[in-house]
Amino acid sequence: MKFTSIVTAAVSSAIAVSGTPIHKREIGGVLLCTGVNATGTCSYSVYALETCHQLPAPFHQNTSTFAPDGEDFECFPRIGDCGSICTSPTGCTFGSVDFNYKNKFNLGAIKWNNLISSFDCSLKTTTSTDCNCIDPLQNTMASITTNASIASFGGRFLKLTHQSSVTGGPMNFTLFLPAGISESAPAPLLIYLSGLTCTPDNVTEKGFLHAHAAPLKLALLYPDTSPRGTSHPGEHDSWDFGSAASFYIDATQEPWAQNYKMETYITKELPELVFSQFKQLDPQRVSIAGHSMGGHGALTLFLKNPGKYKSVSAFSPVSNPSACPWGEKAFTGYLGADKEEWKKHDATELVKHWKGYLNALLDVGTADNFYKQRQLLPENFAEATKAAGIEGLQLRYQDGYDHSYFFISTFGEDHIKHHAKHLGLL
Amino acid sequence: MKFTSIVTAAVSSAIAVSGTPIHKREIGGVLLCTGVNATGTCSYSVYALETCHQLPAPFHQNTSTFAPDGEDFECFPRIGDCGSICTSPTGCTFGSVDFNYKNKFNLGAIKWNNLISSFDCSLKTTTSTDCNCIDPLQNTMASITTNASIASFGGRFLKLTHQSSVTGGPMNFTLFLPAGISESAPAPLLIYLSGLTCTPDNVTEKGFLHAHAAPLKLALLYPDTSPRGTSHPGEHDSWDFGSAASFYIDATQEPWAQNYKMETYITKELPELVFSQFKQLDPQRVSIAGHSMGGHGALTLFLKNPGKYKSVSAFSPVSNPSACPWGEKAFTGYLGADKEEWKKHDATELVKHWKGYLNALLDVGTADNFYKQRQLLPENFAEATKAAGIEGLQLRYQDGYDHSYFFISTFGEDHIKHHAKHLGLL
Repeated sequence: MKFTSIVTAAVSSAIAVSGTPIHKREIGGVLLCTGVNATGTCSYSVYALETCHQLPAPFHQNTSTFAPDGEDFECFPRIGDCGSICTSPTGCTFGSVDFNYKNKFNLGAIKWNNLISSFDCSLKTTTSTDCNCIDPLQNTMASITTNASIASFGGRFLKLTHQSSVTGGPMNFTLFLPAGISESAPAPLLIYLSGLTCTPDNVTEKGFLHAHAAPLKLALLYPDTSPRGTSHPGEHDSWDFGSAASFYIDATQEPWAQNYKMETYITKELPELVFSQFKQLDPQRVSIAGHSMGGHGALTLFLKNPGKYKSVSAFSPVSNPSACPWGEKAFTGYLGADKEEWKKHDATELVKHWKGYLNALLDVGTADNFYKQRQLLPENFAEATKAAGIEGLQLRYQDGYDHSYFFISTFGEDHIKHHAKHLGLL
Repeated sequence: MKFTSIVTAAVSSAIAVSGTPIHKREIGGVLLCTGVNATGTCSYSVYALETCHQLPAPFHQNTSTFAPDGEDFECFPRIGDCGSICTSPTGCTFGSVDFNYKNKFNLGAIKWNNLISSFDCSLKTTTSTDCNCIDPLQNTMASITTNASIASFGGRFLKLTHQSSVTGGPMNFTLFLPAGISESAPAPLLIYLSGLTCTPDNVTEKGFLHAHAAPLKLALLYPDTSPRGTSHPGEHDSWDFGSAASFYIDATQEPWAQNYKMETYITKELPELVFSQFKQLDPQRVSIAGHSMGGHGALTLFLKNPGKYKSVSAFSPVSNPSACPWGEKAFTGYLGADKEEWKKHDATELVKHWKGYLNALLDVGTADNFYKQRQLLPENFAEATKAAGIEGLQLRYQDGYDHSYFFISTFGEDHIKHHAKHLGLL
């Protein structure tokens, strides 16, 4: 068989693989040939997952060999071009083609040798049941385990797990990849930090941020709320300290200092892993948001790292943790009794040192019991910002709204558009 | 004090109370007076809950006595008129006024005697926690218990429970009331039937249908999926039969015939209760939708009751239960072995007798495992409809979507607009 130079055009959105020649059995590796049994003009490349690849000549509607080169992924050949709307009742694909597909070297056997215009590949996954419980069947991509890949609003949610060297245990996270993004047209990323007691699943299922992010081609990253898999004394005893209550800081007090290093995890390890594995995401355009404890996380990580995030937003954020019961308990446990140390992790203190415009949108519900109990104190943050002469803070009080995802989903569109504007999408 | 005739204008949206004089301690009963301590011009009326009431002269921005007449509800006086947008950081209300509010006879004490332009009342409720778990605190309205009232997309979700005489036990349901509806401008109602293993909470939290229904002023009713509170042999042993698996029919076989009468419950008892308690809903404009087993319910109840529902839609519906494992198990258990009986509850059989246009929208995901396993068989329903020469069926296959709420929420806007069109909202 002869290889053609035209092929390079076919792989413009393929993952660049370190070291040539390409190693076989790569995730996303696919052999294309115009002839049966790997004859005629052929192309072997490793293709980015979860994104559409358009076939150029001579393969466009002229591919008889379509051979995925590994057991852990599958591809879906499509009749239509990338971006086209499928109107066929059969779904515009004959289904999944994987390493073991019997006709992969002779698509003519199913009369598809002159039909493929584009294709996309994904890790083999389970689908959801009636009430959306996920079967624990898992597949591995590099250092990330994929628990589920779910189509929604034209894109896909990936429920993922990896082994964190920073937190010393397995960490779950969810990634939303909108349709129509690729390595050549990468999407900016919004990191959303969840609140006390949450896992990445809560916002994935109830936040509906992706409904608004999808049409703007904004990707979403939902990390977990604390290290997992350890059992320090008292770690799992209360809902506002320990597991699911990290407050997104690096603890200095034992035993928490051993692995409660969520600030490092959120700002370094996790994004580096995600950008290394998903080339269709743009590491140069990142923003951060959060809810409640996650709102504190978003505000403080934004303020601690000028320029790292293009914008910040929060729903019902814990805005002055040094002055509220939740924050006092968490900071005492993770940082010790020295309140000077606390100031380094308190948005109301940090904002006093901010230079320039503040691209911040905050929403707080007036029927939020935690707001009424003065756990959130957004007014303190607003006062400190005003006193420092800093412009750009939008703090909105939403009449009658509580602390729940019903509040988040209601105003999610405003937050997504706020970030989209600062990320160059609007 | 003297009563004014102008007051009648103030209560255009008040519930008509049977028997005059109005009984005291009514839910929604509020005494308004221009003077302190129930002096000056006064008006006592029972106001519809969860809807804004505009104050006319002489009460508009001139009310010193604002006295709710019962312990079970609270009211929120507003600075702005009904429909106005609140831009005040204090939320445009000084908060809840209830029976025990100390200044209810002298709002001048808080300088609000010249501020109230409108108000709304609701049952006293809990709010949600970080991850939206509901505190079981309950309040009673007539025969309905309110477990929660949650603001979302400008309207409110009410999580409700009542004692059903048809199913012989307590039944939960969720009602979404959009903003801006009233007895004088009632909203049409879409009944959504959930699938196997679900409760009303799943679609409430994950369906996102209200995001699209709210701006159209379409109300939503989410019933439960089976009778509750009984323990027939085997009732709770399998996820596809018994509890949470009623198939929305009236069972004829013992012991199910005793209380598995969901067809009667969904078509008669529940809507009659809802329309009697919520006068801001229009009993003349009702449509029905559902998911999976609930899609079977929506299709069959629509086809069994010509004219009762203006339109029908379904996500991944069980479309030919007589010919799929789920349906065969359920119909055998609830209806017995006579397959002639089954035909009376099978959409693919019922549609053969339909007269006229079919206002039906069906969506099915091509990555839906239950579709692949031939549990849904929408193609059989489509063939029967076509063979009978019936027009109006829209059956869409959505490429790559599964059976989950991520699929429902993605295409929910299309379904809401389909019903809104047939309910006269578009």
